[in-house]
Amino acid sequence: MNMSSIKRFSARDTNVLPSHFYNIKADLPTLPKPPLHPETRQPLNPQDLEPVFSKGFIAHEGSMERFVPIPDAVQEIFALYRPTPLIYATGLKKALGTPAHIFYKYEGAGPMGSHKSNTALMQAYLAARENIETLVTETGAGQWGSALAHAGALFGVKVKVFMVRVSYRQKPGRRILMEMFGASVEESPSPKTQSGARFYDQNPDHPGSLGIAISEALELAVKSPATRYSLGSVLDAVLMHQTVIGQEADLQMAAQGAEPDVVIGCVGGGSNFGGIAFPFVRKRLKEGRSIRFIAVEPEACPSLTQGELRYDHGDTAGLTPLLYMHTLGMDFVPAPIHAGGLRYHGMAPLVSHLASLGIIEPRVYPQEHIFEAGHLFFKAEGILPAPESSHAVAAAIDEALKAKNEGREKVILFNLSGHGLLDLNAYARNGNGSRNA
Amino acid sequence: MNMSSIKRFSARDTNVLPSHFYNIKADLPTLPKPPLHPETRQPLNPQDLEPVFSKGFIAHEGSMERFVPIPDAVQEIFALYRPTPLIYATGLKKALGTPAHIFYKYEGAGPMGSHKSNTALMQAYLAARENIETLVTETGAGQWGSALAHAGALFGVKVKVFMVRVSYRQKPGRRILMEMFGASVEESPSPKTQSGARFYDQNPDHPGSLGIAISEALELAVKSPATRYSLGSVLDAVLMHQTVIGQEADLQMAAQGAEPDVVIGCVGGGSNFGGIAFPFVRKRLKEGRSIRFIAVEPEACPSLTQGELRYDHGDTAGLTPLLYMHTLGMDFVPAPIHAGGLRYHGMAPLVSHLASLGIIEPRVYPQEHIFEAGHLFFKAEGILPAPESSHAVAAAIDEALKAKNEGREKVILFNLSGHGLLDLNAYARNGNGSRNA
Repeated sequence: MNMSSIKRFSARDTNVLPSHFYNIKADLPTLPKPPLHPETRQPLNPQDLEPVFSKGFIAHEGSMERFVPIPDAVQEIFALYRPTPLIYATGLKKALGTPAHIFYKYEGAGPMGSHKSNTALMQAYLAARENIETLVTETGAGQWGSALAHAGALFGVKVKVFMVRVSYRQKPGRRILMEMFGASVEESPSPKTQSGARFYDQNPDHPGSLGIAISEALELAVKSPATRYSLGSVLDAVLMHQTVIGQEADLQMAAQGAEPDVVIGCVGGGSNFGGIAFPFVRKRLKEGRSIRFIAVEPEACPSLTQGELRYDHGDTAGLTPLLYMHTLGMDFVPAPIHAGGLRYHGMAPLVSHLASLGIIEPRVYPQEHIFEAGHLFFKAEGILPAPESSHAVAAAIDEALKAKNEGREKVILFNLSGHGLLDLNAYARNGNGSRNA
Repeated sequence: MNMSSIKRFSARDTNVLPSHFYNIKADLPTLPKPPLHPETRQPLNPQDLEPVFSKGFIAHEGSMERFVPIPDAVQEIFALYRPTPLIYATGLKKALGTPAHIFYKYEGAGPMGSHKSNTALMQAYLAARENIETLVTETGAGQWGSALAHAGALFGVKVKVFMVRVSYRQKPGRRILMEMFGASVEESPSPKTQSGARFYDQNPDHPGSLGIAISEALELAVKSPATRYSLGSVLDAVLMHQTVIGQEADLQMAAQGAEPDVVIGCVGGGSNFGGIAFPFVRKRLKEGRSIRFIAVEPEACPSLTQGELRYDHGDTAGLTPLLYMHTLGMDFVPAPIHAGGLRYHGMAPLVSHLASLGIIEPRVYPQEHIFEAGHLFFKAEGILPAPESSHAVAAAIDEALKAKNEGREKVILFNLSGHGLLDLNAYARNGNGSRNA
């Protein structure tokens, strides 16, 4: 065994810690169409959002500054786990016999095991600064909910989570984590909101969807004066918060004299993809680098590849503003796949826009394929990807094999957005443990 | 919230990566009594162990060198995850309102989430060098088994694991991890060995113990020519392999101008404790530093506090050499507590010896107490300890509260030997999630 070629980056090289979020809107050739008020269908005013979000969040959402400062208090907490490691995939390269250089950014090293903490900490900080008592949100696989529960506990903000039923039942671990932080967790659809009761009353075992859970959380936020809503993906501000990932990766790769030929992420709402990709999209747009971008989605929820680009609500009850995005329709309920974080009918307007500009290449994989890829990666690298992240792994493997066929030393960067230690049953059920769990 | 006092060490400051293991036997005022042959009861010859262990392992076990070199190939793999972070427990300090400075070494950042990889990688490397086809072992909670399964996959050595039944059933996650690496896992006691059948035939639901599982693994190793046995704790060599933990912690603390007043670890077989403590024991023995050492064990398996110091077998069937150690008797079967890694009737001879010299202070906690401590730590620090590690957490909290009563700025160092993400059901069942899982 020759391990002498192992290169791994300092996970704690604080020189690469960003002081600002990167706002891609400052660099786009054209802007996406603006969100519309759900009733008037006129472009939204920032004030329209005040019953829903913290003012600080609304300011981030509307900002056109290229670089938005990260508050000191948030930078200090980021420094507890950032920069996350950039890992050269020696084991995977060997397993595939590819000349490609594969790097992955390991966001699973963050608290609660995924990239979601990056925006959760920022949003909880903003809420605390405005004395907001409770943040209410939805969660699919529970990565977002547990990240917000942790962030709320740190900043003294209560957290209430509507968890999509199929994940609530498949992934009890993340529910327990949320409750251990003192968050309250409801199975969604629940009978406790009008938006939920509409489905719950027909079928108390309804698997739920992110769209329904968003409606429930929003409904509660709007009804309760000291409560605001918090969203873990889709919105411009959330994607901007995630750009710490791509900024670090850029510096970490540059320090090795490397630059990616292709950047890969999985997409549900679009935030981990936007987080790793946007700083590199800037290099393509502003510095003329020929970098490709691949966004990978599940066959069961193919919004970018099969959805229509049009105005649609972000939720099922039609409470959110109309977003101009790739959508499968607000009523679409995806099959109960294990990648619960990707079961969203729409797509971040910024990702949709970049796809429509031809900058992002969407790709779709069936569930069996991503579990195989995740298992191969695990055996080669010793890190178990979350089922969501395994979509990115699968595309990285395919790109690496293509490079092998072409005999090219392509440089591949992908976002390993979270670990799958709380998804082991999903791997076992998909034939990668030797028996069912 | 004031986070400005956060200090956290570079997890990737490669200046602190040890090149050698530290062998405490070179520095002890007196040596522990030697192991005896199980049949002749005469001091063991190294050759007696050759049917059982790799020759390289036997050489480590018998070495009297103070510093034993870590092979390059193993150093390279260690460098993928070591040095592990040394974390200043800002959140815990605040939660306790203590003037104490609490540092913890986070071994859960390693592959498979615990310290066990340190010796697993070394042992798999030694086996591969001698073309040993299969390593067979036992595991309690599964941390050791998954670490060896990973190490075996890396070095091309097959791994077979007897997993204590109570853990097999409580912690399916770690079993799935082992199987995903291609290891084969048997519930112990099993009907497949004489040592197991003795218990299995009476009761197929027998909860098992580490002592029984060791007998099963040993029996299989001795019967199969290309198979050797691998042990995850207890033996001198294993404790020596773990001293990378304490050596790093010493350098990481020294770089902050800090030195511990007290060093804490949990003890089952004794390896994570020995790993963090021994380099500091050297400072006490050789440099006259007044450092205390606290070894924490579960009430259900109190070998150091209630056991007798005498020769006893390391397993239940009497196949192992006689070790001079604190023991509850080779037939002792501990209650099925969740800290499966601590359910061992004996104690590392080196830890037993240091306890008999008054250098180590043993301490015992009941299960409810350690789950409370683990939950408090989780809320304060955002890292969920394995139930085993929560024993160390509980003692660190008690020492910090004592410092508060005394108004002393005591410096506490403890080993957070593993994360508890695969033990969430145990936390939920012990009342720290809001309902049962």
